[in-house]
Amino acid sequence: MNRDSLELRTTVSADGTLRLHLERVILPEPGPGQLLVRVEAAPINPSDLGLMFGPADLSTLSRDGDALTARIPDAAMPALRSRIGQSLPVGNEGAGTVVAAGPDQQHLIGRRVAMLGGAMYARLRLIGAGDCLVLPEGAGPEEGAALFVNPLTALGFVETMRAEGHKAIVHAPAASNLGQMLARICKADGIGLVNIVRSPEQAALLRGLGAAHVVDSSTASFHEDLTQAVAATGATLCFDAIGGGETTSIVLNAMETVALRDAAAYDRYGSAVKKQGYIYGALDTGPTVLHRSFGFSWSVGGWLLFRALQRLEPATVERMRQRVVEERTTTFASHYTARITLEQALEPETVAAYVRKATGEKYLITP
Amino acid sequence: MNRDSLELRTTVSADGTLRLHLERVILPEPGPGQLLVRVEAAPINPSDLGLMFGPADLSTLSRDGDALTARIPDAAMPALRSRIGQSLPVGNEGAGTVVAAGPDQQHLIGRRVAMLGGAMYARLRLIGAGDCLVLPEGAGPEEGAALFVNPLTALGFVETMRAEGHKAIVHAPAASNLGQMLARICKADGIGLVNIVRSPEQAALLRGLGAAHVVDSSTASFHEDLTQAVAATGATLCFDAIGGGETTSIVLNAMETVALRDAAAYDRYGSAVKKQGYIYGALDTGPTVLHRSFGFSWSVGGWLLFRALQRLEPATVERMRQRVVEERTTTFASHYTARITLEQALEPETVAAYVRKATGEKYLITP
Repeated sequence: MNRDSLELRTTVSADGTLRLHLERVILPEPGPGQLLVRVEAAPINPSDLGLMFGPADLSTLSRDGDALTARIPDAAMPALRSRIGQSLPVGNEGAGTVVAAGPDQQHLIGRRVAMLGGAMYARLRLIGAGDCLVLPEGAGPEEGAALFVNPLTALGFVETMRAEGHKAIVHAPAASNLGQMLARICKADGIGLVNIVRSPEQAALLRGLGAAHVVDSSTASFHEDLTQAVAATGATLCFDAIGGGETTSIVLNAMETVALRDAAAYDRYGSAVKKQGYIYGALDTGPTVLHRSFGFSWSVGGWLLFRALQRLEPATVERMRQRVVEERTTTFASHYTARITLEQALEPETVAAYVRKATGEKYLITP
Repeated sequence: MNRDSLELRTTVSADGTLRLHLERVILPEPGPGQLLVRVEAAPINPSDLGLMFGPADLSTLSRDGDALTARIPDAAMPALRSRIGQSLPVGNEGAGTVVAAGPDQQHLIGRRVAMLGGAMYARLRLIGAGDCLVLPEGAGPEEGAALFVNPLTALGFVETMRAEGHKAIVHAPAASNLGQMLARICKADGIGLVNIVRSPEQAALLRGLGAAHVVDSSTASFHEDLTQAVAATGATLCFDAIGGGETTSIVLNAMETVALRDAAAYDRYGSAVKKQGYIYGALDTGPTVLHRSFGFSWSVGGWLLFRALQRLEPATVERMRQRVVEERTTTFASHYTARITLEQALEPETVAAYVRKATGEKYLITP
């Protein structure tokens, strides 16, 4: 059995250089509970880009032999202190075929699995069977490539809503792969969802999925439309992947406008309705700006899938995983803009395309 | 028994005029459980100013007979919808002498009480005995005027810290009357406190109270000093009355810097240490700006005394009230810049002075 792999690695050096390269690695034989998987497809999620490129200045991207380098601004270096000199593998999730297995896992050889756990931008991945979902016979690699991050995040939003006592959700930007999954879940489960999109085309896409409340931030009536949709759904919870700018602020103020309409009496401290905003991404890395016309009953915080899953009941998480496998070709189907090899992932022109993070665009690495 | 009172009232009309005036009111006789109190002293807290003046443009203040008027910007009117046309009394807290009482409260006639409940900027206040603290014989009105808002807020910070699992607090701006109380509480109880002040004079004031960690935002070494103090105390909780600007953001970033120093391994999502900022005032009504270099384990929210007290155990709240009365002339002593009458509170020059909200300045109404 050939256990020679090639792994995409990212390294920051003390002098402020980011370096991406492909590293030859010989993996050990799988032990008990382990699988050796030939990676067939792994998506590039925004969360992967954070580790791959960190805060590097991408205008300085250049080739250095087979590697790719870029400069990191001095101001960003303190936050990277703990990764200096470490060659880190990349790729949160992926799918592939089991080519070898520990003595207790021999029955899985030849099966296709979906995997979570990092280091997926590689030819081979040695992984615990518990970090895999075994796909049904006949399922292709693209059906399993992205069954963890986006599907569990979308379901995690709904479970967070339930756990924290909200009845509907506002989501921005809603036309992403994740946003489309959330729209399908909310339609199927009868949950109120306000989809904030950034163009008429995105609005049409969401409406095509059956979304009842789609508001377009590029239109003059955005604030009014948003307020109406918040009133119609009763949403008091928002998930925002943009992060920078005023999106969360605008949503909280719309929620407060609705709450004040319903308020019996004036309260100088604003409504008592708790308004929660979660920032779960950083498509805009600029500052978050909050215009606090929404009283004192509000909270804005970071939301991270892995930490949120730890706060949920194990039975809830298991139910989420089962649903993802069952609905992998419908609710949780991802669509890809392009498929690239590991080598292509290090070409400056290709990098420029996949780091753009355009809503609805998604790249797949097919090692 | 004379039950003629004079109450300071604030009214917003639909055309955008704010009007403050003194209203003659004849109060009913106190019923069971009630006290009629001659108000002797009531502080002007920032929270009172919010109700008195709302978002009025104070450059337009002018007299209209015995009343005072100001214009409210059009953009601010929607948030005031539910108070239009209502003549609202003002003054969260105060102290006075019981001049009449319900049949079951006759023993309190002649006693001095501290009161909470609004409408304290008045000659007389009819109030439930449960909303009063009876002061010991000989206690003057100024000892009782401000025993609720600031003392319970300062103690509320400490109880919030305990309830949410933090071990130390950062407070800004720390030289306020409230900040001085908090410094005394934390010193007495051995709780880590980082005091952010805005001048060398304020720093000296806090150090004079025995505060161990005082950092001055007007100095070049502010960020470095703050980070050191956060490291020394282990603070992961911040209370910020400024609200607008970057104060909370700077504090959360200092907390993250400390957390990353202690982190074993690099995590692209930042440290797992939960950093909590609470905004409990709006000395700066401009937007809150968050530079999110502090990862994803963070939350910023509004904090309001009355809503926080409702979340605490009743026994905890009772213990807080007892401590306030016992330590009214030490831990919880307030200092006043000036004493003014109800009539003076409506003079434009006096208004200009007391709305400045300068740290450490505080006005007392002595009807």
